[in-house]
Amino acid sequence: MDVNAYLADLRHEVEAALARLLPPADERPARLHAAMRYSLLAGGKRLRPVLCLASAEAVGGTRAAALLPAIALECLHTYTLIHDDLPAMDDDDLRRGQPTCHKKFDEATAILAGDALLTFAFELLARATPAAQLAQELAQAAGSRGVVGGQAEDLAAEGRAPDAQWLDYIHTHKTGALIRAACRMGALAGGANAAQLAALTSYAGEIGLAFQVADDVLNVTSTPEQLGKATGSDAARKKLTYVALFGLDEARARARTLADEAIAALAPLGARAEPLAALARFTVERSS
Amino acid sequence: MDVNAYLADLRHEVEAALARLLPPADERPARLHAAMRYSLLAGGKRLRPVLCLASAEAVGGTRAAALLPAIALECLHTYTLIHDDLPAMDDDDLRRGQPTCHKKFDEATAILAGDALLTFAFELLARATPAAQLAQELAQAAGSRGVVGGQAEDLAAEGRAPDAQWLDYIHTHKTGALIRAACRMGALAGGANAAQLAALTSYAGEIGLAFQVADDVLNVTSTPEQLGKATGSDAARKKLTYVALFGLDEARARARTLADEAIAALAPLGARAEPLAALARFTVERSS
Repeated sequence: MDVNAYLADLRHEVEAALARLLPPADERPARLHAAMRYSLLAGGKRLRPVLCLASAEAVGGTRAAALLPAIALECLHTYTLIHDDLPAMDDDDLRRGQPTCHKKFDEATAILAGDALLTFAFELLARATPAAQLAQELAQAAGSRGVVGGQAEDLAAEGRAPDAQWLDYIHTHKTGALIRAACRMGALAGGANAAQLAALTSYAGEIGLAFQVADDVLNVTSTPEQLGKATGSDAARKKLTYVALFGLDEARARARTLADEAIAALAPLGARAEPLAALARFTVERSS
Repeated sequence: MDVNAYLADLRHEVEAALARLLPPADERPARLHAAMRYSLLAGGKRLRPVLCLASAEAVGGTRAAALLPAIALECLHTYTLIHDDLPAMDDDDLRRGQPTCHKKFDEATAILAGDALLTFAFELLARATPAAQLAQELAQAAGSRGVVGGQAEDLAAEGRAPDAQWLDYIHTHKTGALIRAACRMGALAGGANAAQLAALTSYAGEIGLAFQVADDVLNVTSTPEQLGKATGSDAARKKLTYVALFGLDEARARARTLADEAIAALAPLGARAEPLAALARFTVERSS
C-alpha cells in the first residue's frame, strides 16, 4: 500500500467536497459566504477530515459514508481558527500564510463567518448516518466541555505560572477533543464495532496530545514562513506550553513516545490502519 | 381553557429546564459556564421555546417530547443576542435590563459563551426525536442562509437607503427563520402530519414578520426602562426599519393584519391552537 498516495487522495477528495458543499460566494449574503469560503479554502493540513475518512476505511467502511462528517469537522475546525484569531482572543494577523479572516474582511464578518461555519457543520451532520450519534460526538467535542472550554481556559491561563494538570486540561480540550471526534466519527460512519471504536479512541487520544506537543515545539523552532503564522508568540505571551514546562528536548521526546503509543493502539485494526500509523508519525515529524 | 395560565405554565417549565440542563456555573471552565448561564437565565419572553411547546401540543403531541428542542431554540437565540451585542456588531451595553455579556464578563468570554451555546443547542437536539430532522431545521434556520445571513445583511444595510425587498430578506432571515423553526420543530417533535405542519409553517411566517414590525415600532415608541435595552437606536444608526419605510401608523396596522392572518392559518388545528392564537396577538400588543 502506497500510504502517501492514499493520504494525498483523501486530501484531494476533501478539497473537492469543501468547494462543492459550501454555499457559493455570490449567493446572498455574499460577503459572508465569501468569508466562509476564504477561510475554509485557504489550505491547511486537513488533518481532521483525513483522520475521519481514514478511520472509516480502517474499520472496513467506505470513505463515502464518512464524507459529510469529514467536511463537518473541517468546517468546525475552521470556525475555531477564525474566532481564536479575533482581536479579543489571540489577535493574530496571519493564518496559513494569509491574512486572517477579520483582517481580510472585518471583525463582524469574521464573527458571523465562524458562527455560520459552526452551524453548517451540524447541518451537514444532520444529512449523515448515524446523524444523532455523529452530532452528539461533535457537539460534545466542540462545546464548553470541549474545544470552546479549552480556549476559555487557555485565555485564562495566559501569564500565569505553568501547571501540568491545567495544561493537560487545555490541550485535551482545545486540540484533543476534535481529533478524538474525527476518529470516532469516522469509525461510527464506517460502522465500527465496539473494539474498533475503542482502538481508534485510544489512538486519537495519543495523537491529539502528540499533535499539541509538536505544535508547541514548532512555535519555538519554526520560522513564520514555514508555519504560515506568527512564531515565538507563545513565549511572548507567557503562554503555558509543553516547551515551557519540560524544555525543548524533553517535549520532543514526549511527542515521539505519544506517536509510538498511538501506533500500538491500532494493532487490533490490522493492515487497514497503516495510513493512520503514517498520520501519527506525521503529526510529530511535520515542519508546519 | 385559561390561555394565560397555560402560557405561564409553559414559560415556567422552560425556566426550570434551562436552569437544570445548562452546565453548572462552578464546573470548569467556570467563567465560561457562568457567562452562558448569566445570559440564558437573565429573563426574556421565552417566545421561541413556548412556541415550540405550544406547537407540539397543538398537533396532539406532548410538551415533554418538545422540551429538548424548545431549550435548544432558546440556547441558540441567546447566542445570537450575545454575538449581536458585541462591539464589532451592534455594540450594545444593555440587554433585558442587564449589562450585555461582554460588559459583564469580557469580549473573549462573550464570543466563546455564544459559540458554546450554539454548540450546546445541537447537543440537546442530538438527544431529541427525530434528531436528524430537528437538527436540520435548526441548522438551516440559524446558518448563513438564516439568522446569521440576516444579521450579515442587517450590518451591510446600515446607513443605506431603505428598500422593501432588502428589508424583507433581513427580517425573514434574522427574526423570522428562528420563529419558523420553533413552530416547525415543535410540530415535528409532536408528530405532526403534513397538513398540521403546513398550517404551523404559515402561522409562523406571519407572526415572525409581525414580531419584527412590532419590534421596529417599539424601538421608536418605548422607553429603555420598558424595553430593557436602548431605544431610538435604529433611527440613530439610520437602520432600515418598517417604521422608516412605512411610517409609524402604517407599520402598526401592518403588524395587526399579519397577526390576524397568522390566527386564520391556525384554523385546521382547531381549539388546541388557542394558545398560539393568543401568542400571535401578544407579539403585536406587547410593550417590551
